Amino acid sequence: MNPEKAIFFDKVTIIGVGLIGASLALALRQNSLCRIIVGCGRNEENLKRAITRSIIDDYSLDVRQACHESDLIILSTPVGAFGEITKKVRDILKKGSIVTDVGSVKGNLVYEIESMIPEGSFYIGSHPIAGSDRSGIDDAKADLFKSALCIITPTENSDTESMRKIALLWEGLGARIRFMDPYKHDEIYGAISHLPHVVAYALVNTIGDVNPEFIEYAGQGFKDTTRIALSSPQMWRDIVIYNRENLIRLIDTFVRNLEKMKKLLEDADAEGIEREFSKAQELRKKR
Amino acid sequence: MNPEKAIFFDKVTIIGVGLIGASLALALRQNSLCRIIVGCGRNEENLKRAITRSIIDDYSLDVRQACHESDLIILSTPVGAFGEITKKVRDILKKGSIVTDVGSVKGNLVYEIESMIPEGSFYIGSHPIAGSDRSGIDDAKADLFKSALCIITPTENSDTESMRKIALLWEGLGARIRFMDPYKHDEIYGAISHLPHVVAYALVNTIGDVNPEFIEYAGQGFKDTTRIALSSPQMWRDIVIYNRENLIRLIDTFVRNLEKMKKLLEDADAEGIEREFSKAQELRKKR
Repeated sequence: MNPEKAIFFDKVTIIGVGLIGASLALALRQNSLCRIIVGCGRNEENLKRAITRSIIDDYSLDVRQACHESDLIILSTPVGAFGEITKKVRDILKKGSIVTDVGSVKGNLVYEIESMIPEGSFYIGSHPIAGSDRSGIDDAKADLFKSALCIITPTENSDTESMRKIALLWEGLGARIRFMDPYKHDEIYGAISHLPHVVAYALVNTIGDVNPEFIEYAGQGFKDTTRIALSSPQMWRDIVIYNRENLIRLIDTFVRNLEKMKKLLEDADAEGIEREFSKAQELRKKR
Repeated sequence: MNPEKAIFFDKVTIIGVGLIGASLALALRQNSLCRIIVGCGRNEENLKRAITRSIIDDYSLDVRQACHESDLIILSTPVGAFGEITKKVRDILKKGSIVTDVGSVKGNLVYEIESMIPEGSFYIGSHPIAGSDRSGIDDAKADLFKSALCIITPTENSDTESMRKIALLWEGLGARIRFMDPYKHDEIYGAISHLPHVVAYALVNTIGDVNPEFIEYAGQGFKDTTRIALSSPQMWRDIVIYNRENLIRLIDTFVRNLEKMKKLLEDADAEGIEREFSKAQELRKKR
């Protein structure tokens, strides 16, 4: 890394030590971006294991204690807990400290958190595109963010210096950063990530409705298509609730596409079906 | 393999030398299940490459010539071509020869083909669950069927000895076989494979409707969920047309699940959403 671009935090607090939180800790350490990492969570067993595995240096079950004198606080719990956590720690934030998060939803949530941060401290939202259906520390790895896209979502109120620091942080972990309006983020990720999750869950439930025993015949196609239905229901419940306005519209558009397919099937319109399939194949090839 | 269970065909004809056809050829050779393999298709360049790579021994662009004196004929083209091919070769089939196929749809198609086979020759349908979004010989491999499930779909008219031979063939290639009624096959694979393909294509087209540029932000979740939208539109057009009655009902059930999700989102019913997600996660874990 270019030394003039280096960033260093003395104390970092990671609230929510799961796949992303633990990977962040490992990556921060490997890239020498901080001195001490304190974990915080509700499951003491998990935090103890994180210490044993040298993922974090210390932990506290008390979020205020965990954030005491912290220079960088990373919210890495399900997004539904961000507001409550911020409310709990706002009055003990160290002068000059930065709060960020790794939530999959931004929009209103970013403004909610921003409005709770007192003067002298700063909040910048981020969303590394590095999640998985796994959610525990067993799958954590230091290079999870290497070459991954990380969306940073400043607002018109954001502190420029903190934006720069958060950008350097993610670049320091190997991510490719992109700045984006929080609402634009939710429009894009509603389509490209939240809708596919709803679709995967609904597709598995459709098999459940038809005959759950059919699942034993599933091949790789089904497994890949529904892999993300293995994702944490608690985590995804929060995400889709926060982005529900976009999602409701997106479900409508998706259902229209399905109804179009259904009509083509009713008409046994082979040409029309091939056209729809080819259109999808062409676009999918771009990724 | 147990020698008393061994099977051997003198001449095998593979019509349609793509991923499955070429893998079959490689697997037949590796397991010494035949003496000579003749490929047949419309793309001479592809057939020449298959010879160069020692996938097939000979080829013909003429399906009657390719099937001349053949002991085993394997239909490995898109399913829509099976009927026409069978019609072309029915009067030159060798006495005692067996026709099989590797199509993803069975039901009526099996009875259609069966009715065209003259006395003294036999047809037994099969469906190895070993496809992929790839469709060319470049991805062919001899162990594609190893441990894969292969559904064999005899009818009440099927010749028992031919059924036994087709079972030994697939077992000889390492597949785990399962006998199933052709209509039951389509009910199951309509749900577990054909619907997911329609869903994947429709999901990508939804992104196309919203904003095709969003695709560049897609992470691994989107990629996995829509991988099968890379599958051959020609191949899948035929499959879904043949199984359209099941698919139309399945799309209805799927849309009902999506509408349920939409209602829960409109009601911001976090508990209800988590319940739906958890139900799907539980069932998906079984595969």
